[in-house]
Amino acid sequence: MGYQEFTIEGRNAVIEAFRSGREVDKLYILDGCQDGPVATIKREAKKHDTLIKFVTKERLDQLSETGKHQGVIAVIAAYEYSTVEDILENARKKNEAPFVFLLDNIEDPHNLGAIIRTANLAGAHGVIIPKNRAAGLTATVARTSAGALNYTPVAKVTNLAKTIEELKKEGMWFVCADMDGKVMYDLDLKGAIGLVIGNEGEGVGRLVKEKCDMVASIPMKGDIDSLNASVAAGVLAYEIVRQRMS
Amino acid sequence: MGYQEFTIEGRNAVIEAFRSGREVDKLYILDGCQDGPVATIKREAKKHDTLIKFVTKERLDQLSETGKHQGVIAVIAAYEYSTVEDILENARKKNEAPFVFLLDNIEDPHNLGAIIRTANLAGAHGVIIPKNRAAGLTATVARTSAGALNYTPVAKVTNLAKTIEELKKEGMWFVCADMDGKVMYDLDLKGAIGLVIGNEGEGVGRLVKEKCDMVASIPMKGDIDSLNASVAAGVLAYEIVRQRMS
Repeated sequence: MGYQEFTIEGRNAVIEAFRSGREVDKLYILDGCQDGPVATIKREAKKHDTLIKFVTKERLDQLSETGKHQGVIAVIAAYEYSTVEDILENARKKNEAPFVFLLDNIEDPHNLGAIIRTANLAGAHGVIIPKNRAAGLTATVARTSAGALNYTPVAKVTNLAKTIEELKKEGMWFVCADMDGKVMYDLDLKGAIGLVIGNEGEGVGRLVKEKCDMVASIPMKGDIDSLNASVAAGVLAYEIVRQRMS
Repeated sequence: MGYQEFTIEGRNAVIEAFRSGREVDKLYILDGCQDGPVATIKREAKKHDTLIKFVTKERLDQLSETGKHQGVIAVIAAYEYSTVEDILENARKKNEAPFVFLLDNIEDPHNLGAIIRTANLAGAHGVIIPKNRAAGLTATVARTSAGALNYTPVAKVTNLAKTIEELKKEGMWFVCADMDGKVMYDLDLKGAIGLVIGNEGEGVGRLVKEKCDMVASIPMKGDIDSLNASVAAGVLAYEIVRQRMS
């Protein structure tokens, strides 16, 4: 486990990074630099919605680790993922019933960071995210997690439904959030529990929902549809905390 | 009450908008336009952290309401604030004990929007924000509120501590969130209540905190300091909802 940032420097290396599908968090380009390769890099950055900062040569020299930046430096985030087994071991070491967050395709990195932050403070033993579609652990996630990414293990799995099935064999129960569920205050959320949080727009996917033992709803007394995903995760997580404490 | 966007068009009008201190949400500039006034506008935009979009003439013509954009269109948000009296009236009409959010200098517009969204869904009758420092109701707030800004009244007051004092005379109780408080599950949060949420970095200000009847803490079992402000607001608001429902 652990999060760090490193740089990729020089025109070809940066173009290659984009083309190989690496997620570039930030791109520094020498202000005024207009030649062909730089134009290509700008085009790639635009295509991938990468933030570009135009800076002076002094700033680039400062940022450079190799001293050979050729006017271009890309910042890449690297995170060493945990495994589901690490998360269970984390619970065992603390002598607590496992409490795990499972995120079914959270797309917004701000939400992902805020949810990892909540998982840490609610005392969850780890966070499981799927390999596809969902937001990865970028610099934005690290920042919005307010440091939690360095403490709370995050595991990436190929198939969330299958992971839930395997964890059920270990004695865990699963609850997902959905509007058609039972009011969360009336559910028994104690013991070894997995909290499944759905995608911002579509909620929890059908296959994942079918694997859940309980569907919890947050009482909605207003005019609009749903809470922000990270707020919903916080409200549900703290209902679990309340029940575990009582 | 009500939120809308309108445009300011033409070079002088846009420069004037910036100089008079208006909050410009978005700036559209004709792609390739480089002359003096446009350079001035770009400089002002940079100074105010305004998002610039470089677009085609066709797009500008489409956005224009006057047909005289001269290559520059600024988008401004306008919100008609409610009053504290409107908020109390809103509770009275629903025949409910008042439930009001008071935000002590929330600075991030995403947090402000998410909190207004939560206030709506938790059944709060309105949100009170202070006039100074705090984020205003911009397009970002409107968007992240997911429409709640059109339903939940927001009032702006000069002095939050004084407003609390006045509302106490109406029989309201006030609870603020702080780490040194009593665990929220052990407090009596029923009845006419004002929930005070502090600033992202500094928490609730001393003068405001002194006016509060109760200080509530959210149990923190993790390694880091605090929840995201909008998540903390959601967790506390739903503890109030739970107690009001029981």
